[in-house]
This record gives sequence, C-alpha cells and structure tokens, in this order.
Amino acid sequence: MQVSAEEVRACASRAKVAAAQLAPLSRAPKDAALLGMAEALLARSGELLAANEQDVAAARAGGMSDAMVDRLTLTQARLAAMADGLRQVAGLVDPVGEVVRGRVLPNGMELRQVRVPLGVVGIIYEARPNVTVDAAGLCLKSGNAVLLRGSASAVRSNTAIVAVLRDAIVAAGLPADAVQLVPGVDHESVKHLMRARGLVDVLIPRGGANLIRTVVEESTVPVIETGVGNCHVYVDADADLDMAVDITVNSKTQRVSVCNAAETLLVHADVAADFLPRVLAALAEKGVTVHGDEAVRDVDPNAVPATEDDWYAEYLSYDMAVKVVPSLDAAVEHIRHYGSGHTESIVTRSLAAARRFIATCDSAAVMVNASTRFTDGERFGMGAEIGISTQKLHARGPMGLPELTSTTWVAFGDGHLV
Amino acid sequence: MQVSAEEVRACASRAKVAAAQLAPLSRAPKDAALLGMAEALLARSGELLAANEQDVAAARAGGMSDAMVDRLTLTQARLAAMADGLRQVAGLVDPVGEVVRGRVLPNGMELRQVRVPLGVVGIIYEARPNVTVDAAGLCLKSGNAVLLRGSASAVRSNTAIVAVLRDAIVAAGLPADAVQLVPGVDHESVKHLMRARGLVDVLIPRGGANLIRTVVEESTVPVIETGVGNCHVYVDADADLDMAVDITVNSKTQRVSVCNAAETLLVHADVAADFLPRVLAALAEKGVTVHGDEAVRDVDPNAVPATEDDWYAEYLSYDMAVKVVPSLDAAVEHIRHYGSGHTESIVTRSLAAARRFIATCDSAAVMVNASTRFTDGERFGMGAEIGISTQKLHARGPMGLPELTSTTWVAFGDGHLV
Repeated sequence: MQVSAEEVRACASRAKVAAAQLAPLSRAPKDAALLGMAEALLARSGELLAANEQDVAAARAGGMSDAMVDRLTLTQARLAAMADGLRQVAGLVDPVGEVVRGRVLPNGMELRQVRVPLGVVGIIYEARPNVTVDAAGLCLKSGNAVLLRGSASAVRSNTAIVAVLRDAIVAAGLPADAVQLVPGVDHESVKHLMRARGLVDVLIPRGGANLIRTVVEESTVPVIETGVGNCHVYVDADADLDMAVDITVNSKTQRVSVCNAAETLLVHADVAADFLPRVLAALAEKGVTVHGDEAVRDVDPNAVPATEDDWYAEYLSYDMAVKVVPSLDAAVEHIRHYGSGHTESIVTRSLAAARRFIATCDSAAVMVNASTRFTDGERFGMGAEIGISTQKLHARGPMGLPELTSTTWVAFGDGHLV
Repeated sequence: MQVSAEEVRACASRAKVAAAQLAPLSRAPKDAALLGMAEALLARSGELLAANEQDVAAARAGGMSDAMVDRLTLTQARLAAMADGLRQVAGLVDPVGEVVRGRVLPNGMELRQVRVPLGVVGIIYEARPNVTVDAAGLCLKSGNAVLLRGSASAVRSNTAIVAVLRDAIVAAGLPADAVQLVPGVDHESVKHLMRARGLVDVLIPRGGANLIRTVVEESTVPVIETGVGNCHVYVDADADLDMAVDITVNSKTQRVSVCNAAETLLVHADVAADFLPRVLAALAEKGVTVHGDEAVRDVDPNAVPATEDDWYAEYLSYDMAVKVVPSLDAAVEHIRHYGSGHTESIVTRSLAAARRFIATCDSAAVMVNASTRFTDGERFGMGAEIGISTQKLHARGPMGLPELTSTTWVAFGDGHLV
C-alpha cells in the first residue's frame, strides 16, 4: 500500500517538534543518549539479528547478488562495530554553540555568530543497515532530528534498529522522534519527503547516481549532493615514478567499491615511456583492466580501447581509464571536463606543479603525493562522516558534525536603534 | 522573442570559462578591476543616465507607481554611491585563500581546508539597477563569475551598466565574461537559468515572495533563499518599557519597505496594561495602523481586528500586528509558527529570559535590546551584502564575501598510502 503525503508530513512534523526540543540541549544529555543507544544495540542484538535474517532470506529469495547480501547482513561483530561508532561520536566535541565569529561593533553592540542545529535532516540511502545507526548518532549529537528513509530490502532490519534506538533515546530523557523511519518503501514516500519544504531542512541522498539525480531534480527541500566519485591520479613530468606506481595502485585497488577510489590515470607525456610499462604491469598484477588511449595501447596491446564514456565512468570495479597528456594544464582540463569534483591526486616533486594543480583543479579534495583514498571523514580526523559532498554549497568533501549545523547571529544591545 | 535554452546555456558556459580564470587570481588584480569599474561608472555616466531615462519613460508610460519609478531611477548621486560601493568592496579582505581549518594528521600528512570561489553565481532580481553593480562587485572580489538576470523594466539601464563594467574589467586584464547579463526578459530566460545545473553553481533570487517561491520550486541549481522578513519584537515581562517603545517604533518605522523591519509586536501579559497604551500611542503618532488581538483592541478600539493572515504578513508598510502573549515560551511558539526565520528582537532586563529566547527562537538573527533593523551586512561590519539568507543551508543571515565562497581540502603527503 502506498504511503500518503499526509503520513510522511506527519512524520516530518513530529521530527520538527523533536528538533525544537533537541536544539537547546547541552552536550551531556546527548552523549548519555548515544551511550545508551550503543548499549541497547548490544543488549538487544537477538531481535536485531532475527529481523535482519528475514531481510537476508527475502533478499536471497529475490535473487540479490552475494556482494549486496553481504552488505545487508548483520552479525554480532558488525553490531559491536556500530555500537563502537556511537561511542566514538559521543566522544566528539559538540558542534552546537561554537562561536564561529564575534566582535564588539563600533556602536557597542556585541555580535556573535553561533552554531545551531540544522533542524530536521532527511537521509535517503540504500542497502547497508549500519547507515541507520551512523546517521542517527551524528544527527543526534549535532542536535538534529533525523528522518531515515532506507531501502526496501533492509526495512525489517531498519525498523528493528530504529525501535531499539528510540527506546534508548526515551530512556535517556530525550524525545523518541529525534530518530524516525519514514513510512513507506516505494518512490512515493521519497517523493513526499522531497516536497516537505518547511518541515525538512535538508535532504542528503546517499547511494547510486540515479537516486542522487532524482533527488536533485525533484526536491524542493535543499539537497546536499554526495558521493559520485570519478577521481583522478595525475603523474607529473617531475614525479617520483616509484611513488607514482604505489599511489596509482593504492588509489585504484585498495578498495574498488568506494567513491574515493581512483578511476582515471593521467600521465605526462615526458614520463610516459618510463612510467607506463611499470604502472601497467603493477595494475595487471592486481587484476585491473586498463581502458587506454592510443599511447597506452602502444605500450600494452592488451589494453581495451578507451571510449568517451570511459573518461566519465565511475567504475567502482577493477577497471581504470588511462591517458597520456601533453601537460599539467591538459590534465587539469581533462579533470574539469570529465571529473565529478570529488578527489584528484598529483604525484610530483615540483612545488610549482603542485601549486598550479591545487589552484586550478576544481574538486572537493586535492592530494599531493598521496592516495585519493584519504578523502574520508575519519582519515581527516573529523571523527565520522555522514557522507562526502561533491557540491559547493554548504559543505564540500567529507561532512562531519559541523557540516550538520547552521548558524544564528546573536546581538546584545542596550536599547540600540538604527 | 523568447530566448532559447541554448542561448542561456552558452552564456553560462562562457561564465564557467571566466570563473576558471578568476579562481586562481590573487587580490591585487581583482581590486584593480573594481577600482576601474568604479571610475568607469562615473566617466561614462552620460550614457548610463541616458539609458536609464528610456527605462524610466517606458515605466511611467506603463503606469508604474511613483515609488517603483523612484527605485528604478538613476541620478549622478546614485551613480556616485554605486562607484563608492565598488571602492569599499575593493577595500575588503579577499575571502579566497583563507585557511579555514588545518592540521598535521597523525600519519604526517598536512591537511588544510581553504576558501575557493563558488564558481558561477546567478542573481535574479527586480527593479533597482544598483543591485547590478553591487552583485558584480561582490562576485568579482570573491573570484566568481556572475550571471545577472534583472527585471524587464530595468533592461536598458542594466545593459548599459554591464557594458561599462565589462569594458573596465577587460581594461584591467580580466575576462569580460566575469560579468554577464543573462539574455531575455521573460520567464523562459529564468527557467533556462534554473535548469543549468553543472554550469551554474548557485542561484540567489532577490525580490518578492512569488519570485523566490518559483525559483525554490523549479530550480535544479542549488538556491539560496533570501529576504522574506516577518520580524518580531517581543516585549518581556521584565522589559524596560521606555526602551521597548523606542525599539518597537524604530524596528517598525525607521524604514518600512525593508525585510528587517518588524511586522509583529508580541507583549507579555504582565506588562500589557502599562505598555500597550504607550506603544500604541507612539505607533499612532508615526501613522502606523495596528492590527490587534482582543486584548489590544480593548486598549485601542481603533485597532483593526487581526486575522490569521496578519500573523503571517510581511506588510512592508505602516501596518503592525500586535498580540498579547501569556509567556516568553508562548511568544517563541508564535514566532516559530508564523515567522519567516529572519530576525526577532527581545526587550528584557532578565538574563534568563534573553538566554531562553536566544536558545529557542529559530531565526537567522536574534537581537537582545536592539532594533530588528540591525540585521544587515554593513551594520554587522561585513562591508556589504549580496542578500540576507533565511534558509539554514550554506549561509544564514546577511551574506557577505565569505558566503560567496566554497572550500577545498588540500593535503600534502610524501607518498602516503591507505
């Protein structure tokens, strides 16, 4: 049965009421709730694993691939990791109340800009039930009420998890509606959520390119676009070629299914003759299929001819597009044209080249002599992330707790008039 | 003749090319261009005033109100003020390149988050030609290319102004397409702009509620909502009542046509008997029509009965809705329900009341014992503003130069692998 707009709006309205109660809280009660949530996940693991078994059985019956079933599956160890994640979030500094800027104005008024929660955050995501816990934890810590819209395949797991989290939240004296599952598993439910402007402050879609495009196109609620990563490694004329091989292989193969894995390798023509044989051999050893331009195929006749689509591709697999470029500027031009603005890495010993690459690439993150895989909230020392923004508004790159806040200007006067 | 999507997209593509050239610039060439633009406005005032005269004549012939014609009209003095505004922007610190955060990570990588331009900023606005100059100046200073879509009534003035600005930009060695007027004056042109995702990084609508709603509903380009201001003054039980009269009158009447003027006065029941006669007399003296609830009409039988619509109204006129509330919390509840999240002011001597009002109001700015009229980029010491955001994402309250930027993460490694 399709969910009605009224049901989704009622859910969002409850979130708005909860958000007003969460906003003025100091850190201690929020941390207590997070620790209680962690404990409850472990204490009630039996019912969570039972609910998850039903999802997994239904997924297998429906012909879901083994890799996807693995992402869906909960185990005692995975529940322990989720609980540990909540405890880590409890250990992070509360972003709410941070004074971002402030001064006494010439007229004597005291002015400050203070971090406040965004309010109601909607997350639309696919498959993995651990996102349910991560998102709930980060939103609660930052004083936001969260609306979770997971995938149909995980609905039993998510329902059970949210029930456990809500009980723990109530036990800690906070409003249960701080964390809600959005009713409905069809597209209607997402559609109603996307039209709930005024009730929902931001929507964060996490998932495939299609999901993200739909939300961006149809939502009247402000959206933060996340995740599509066509990341590049550029090997400069002045690169340490051993380092360049290692960075290329690590960026491509350390984990191929993630958005910060590299998809395209660009090689300066001056080092192509030296570098290509070495990097292509190293990639072949890892089982990577190379999609190359003519210069690449001259070195490796086994390389698949690269088409225009390859330069745009986010493979998320053991495939890599490889191209020889005449200059750093040509590499940047390629990246700006075909890239998704996620992460680019330059390998070079030249300070001038590094500076020019940084100044002209237009991406959320630029690595100099480091793997693209470093673009990650935890690796950046932010503690945890709710996603990686590839848009420029509000947040860019890994989004941690501060990115889940807005600000308010507060001014103290003494009868000041204009 | 309607403008085609291709024409608007071509214009945005040119802006994107210009934006890439502006992004790596340091402050000096941008300031030189701004000073040249200021000089050119004065040197070529003759052609600007002539173009404006045609707009004004057409507007009068079309029956435009005197107030609107006044907003449209350019004079030598107004051109001088516009030139002066550009010089002030040249004097502001360049937001681009500011290191927002940074640290050495435990693994030795150096990480920093640096301000960069947004890229291409689209501004959709009504009537006043000075916005053309202000927006061009602020966007250029922050390294952005700007697409200006002014109203049909000002098209001759805007065309002439943009021609002058572009000449000055070229003379300073920067790309002319840093500043462009979007072709077309009908809704089609706005529509194409709103669908140019990937070419335009942000749209800022400045104007009436209808324009803003349309852009929010229809745009796939990220939008920053500005301007609608249903601002409140709340007079607490513990207020200095003389100060409260002054702040109410100043917030309401100092300039009624602006978004930070107060529209609703909320009075704590404990001081209503003392305060209402005084404030109503003071408002009457300024020619303000009061729309009151029953308690207010008991004091002033001339007050118009307030309807539900009055609590929502952004009058922008000599009208004020006035209501007696039983408590501070009731005042905040009213503000959260009917307000637009712009600016609220509390008049009180109680620290506890001030703290509670700040913590529970959910608005871009909260004033304690000061006029709502202070919410303004220049008064906040930000130098100039491109608008006042009433949404929570990216920017909230007056938007100055930093709000016209995004950030990039830059990491320096030494062959770091994950």
